[in-house]
Amino acid sequence: MHAITIPEPGGPEALVWAEVPDPVPGEGEVLIEVAAAAVNRADLLQRQGFYDPPPGASPYPGLECSGRIAALGTGVSGWSVGDEVCALLAGGGYAEQVVVPASQVLPVPDGVDLVQAAALPEVVCTVWSNVFMVAHLRPGETLLVHGGASGIGTMAIQLGKAVGAKVAVTAGSKEKLDQCAELGADILISYREQDFVDELKAATDGAGADVILDIMGAKYLDRNVKALALGGRLAIIGLQGGVKGELNLGALLAKRGAVTATSLRSRPVTEKASIVAAVHEHVWPLVSAGQIRPVIDRSIPLSRAGEGHRVLEESSHVGKVLLTR
Amino acid sequence: MHAITIPEPGGPEALVWAEVPDPVPGEGEVLIEVAAAAVNRADLLQRQGFYDPPPGASPYPGLECSGRIAALGTGVSGWSVGDEVCALLAGGGYAEQVVVPASQVLPVPDGVDLVQAAALPEVVCTVWSNVFMVAHLRPGETLLVHGGASGIGTMAIQLGKAVGAKVAVTAGSKEKLDQCAELGADILISYREQDFVDELKAATDGAGADVILDIMGAKYLDRNVKALALGGRLAIIGLQGGVKGELNLGALLAKRGAVTATSLRSRPVTEKASIVAAVHEHVWPLVSAGQIRPVIDRSIPLSRAGEGHRVLEESSHVGKVLLTR
Repeated sequence: MHAITIPEPGGPEALVWAEVPDPVPGEGEVLIEVAAAAVNRADLLQRQGFYDPPPGASPYPGLECSGRIAALGTGVSGWSVGDEVCALLAGGGYAEQVVVPASQVLPVPDGVDLVQAAALPEVVCTVWSNVFMVAHLRPGETLLVHGGASGIGTMAIQLGKAVGAKVAVTAGSKEKLDQCAELGADILISYREQDFVDELKAATDGAGADVILDIMGAKYLDRNVKALALGGRLAIIGLQGGVKGELNLGALLAKRGAVTATSLRSRPVTEKASIVAAVHEHVWPLVSAGQIRPVIDRSIPLSRAGEGHRVLEESSHVGKVLLTR
Repeated sequence: MHAITIPEPGGPEALVWAEVPDPVPGEGEVLIEVAAAAVNRADLLQRQGFYDPPPGASPYPGLECSGRIAALGTGVSGWSVGDEVCALLAGGGYAEQVVVPASQVLPVPDGVDLVQAAALPEVVCTVWSNVFMVAHLRPGETLLVHGGASGIGTMAIQLGKAVGAKVAVTAGSKEKLDQCAELGADILISYREQDFVDELKAATDGAGADVILDIMGAKYLDRNVKALALGGRLAIIGLQGGVKGELNLGALLAKRGAVTATSLRSRPVTEKASIVAAVHEHVWPLVSAGQIRPVIDRSIPLSRAGEGHRVLEESSHVGKVLLTR
């Protein structure tokens, strides 16, 4: 088969479409003939040499895909060859074929086509596991989503609204904020022109956010703690603004707050399985009902994956960038 | 009645035994004739002028007491005048009488005498709410308790062992570590002579602590994150080592860890009530069975409360310092 390889870390041109050995499904795994993959920011880090795949994972990038099941490993039940699916991957989605534990496979939901479904697994699992399973967002609470127009952001807005939360977002342009509003965001903050702490406080009668989904890490740490409500939970899933930041424990203690930091990719298969199962139970019905939809910025041929990386680096996109066969 | 007052913030001599107005129980409150109070580190901060009582609380120090119910406010059921009780207070325990919401009152457990019971409410509620209700310590996990010989520490060791956890402690002397071992601690670390991260890792095959109960704040923040196991939870309840510290979010994310900071005193009455109810349900039976006991360093007459403060400032005690009538 062909896959996107990374002979040497570097810029988007470091991604090389090349012939590689066919993957073979092991026990409990399925082989998927990939219809589409989607670009995640972690793929850019892997391309640059900053984010090695976890042990045992495919060396090729790609944390999610859609496609048809082409073969079953031993001990797999509940799936058949030909099933249209999407999957959460530890890597290897930028390829014609990929193997994945059957527990990380989901059916393509009703009302979503096979290619579009590639936009769902990583963002839905990331948002669900952090905002709901870790931070326990409840109806009536306020969720602040940084980078509201990103793939993660567009899903977090929709899921926040679906459970009855008030949703605030930050984004870098009027166009992006307009798109967030269309998805249901209640409070729109331009991080280039406004201070998100002040704006959020003003929009919540001084209360702040019960849950913050953050991708900036160190750069926003102090302001995120300031923006938390009493009992608020800061869930950090990205470190685009740096790794080490000053934490004001006095402020956190006064708010009885929590700071969590997680990544999805490095989790053991059993934890991914429980997240995927929870997503199937709680989110898939919302997708099938049309209440949640994949937000897709554009599609680019998989063999030219570098162009997709450039889109994320320019940050001009809204929602997911797909890579199609 | 008489109470310990703080006419001007200062050293232990700032505590003045003086005649003050009698407190009157309001709706849902009971009046307790105090038998004993206990000294908490927060009382020292209040004496120094760094920790004002929350709105509506008594101006006198004292976060816990034992005694007999002397009067009931309107709307109180389940308690009678003369009942022997102990109580979690927002303040006012250093007095001959104190009023408290009935939901923060607990019966004196079987096998504990009335005076000793004053040593229980604050430490049991603090440990239970943080280690179990927030950090969800589970059987078989490792709990690291900083300041294992303190009032909080001696209770955390006992409760950790009672639920089947492995318990590691830090303390400043061989004598204190010996006392921790007597209470059941499995891993003894002298913070003056050893690096707690190295020692804990060595004693847990490199795994680290699933839950850390911390009183040092900023000074230990970086090392506490290093000492966390995968999925570990750092529960900060004191800031004796400073308020602002550098948090390595990369390390926290790689461990999928959580940092929480809480205080008990400032919580609303409804939250205190749910903590007290959980303590009554889960911890009181262990106390009555003799599996958990109050650890008392010494008793000092309430009118000489300053002497009790000096004991805590010298940090030579093991367990609680009581103030008795």
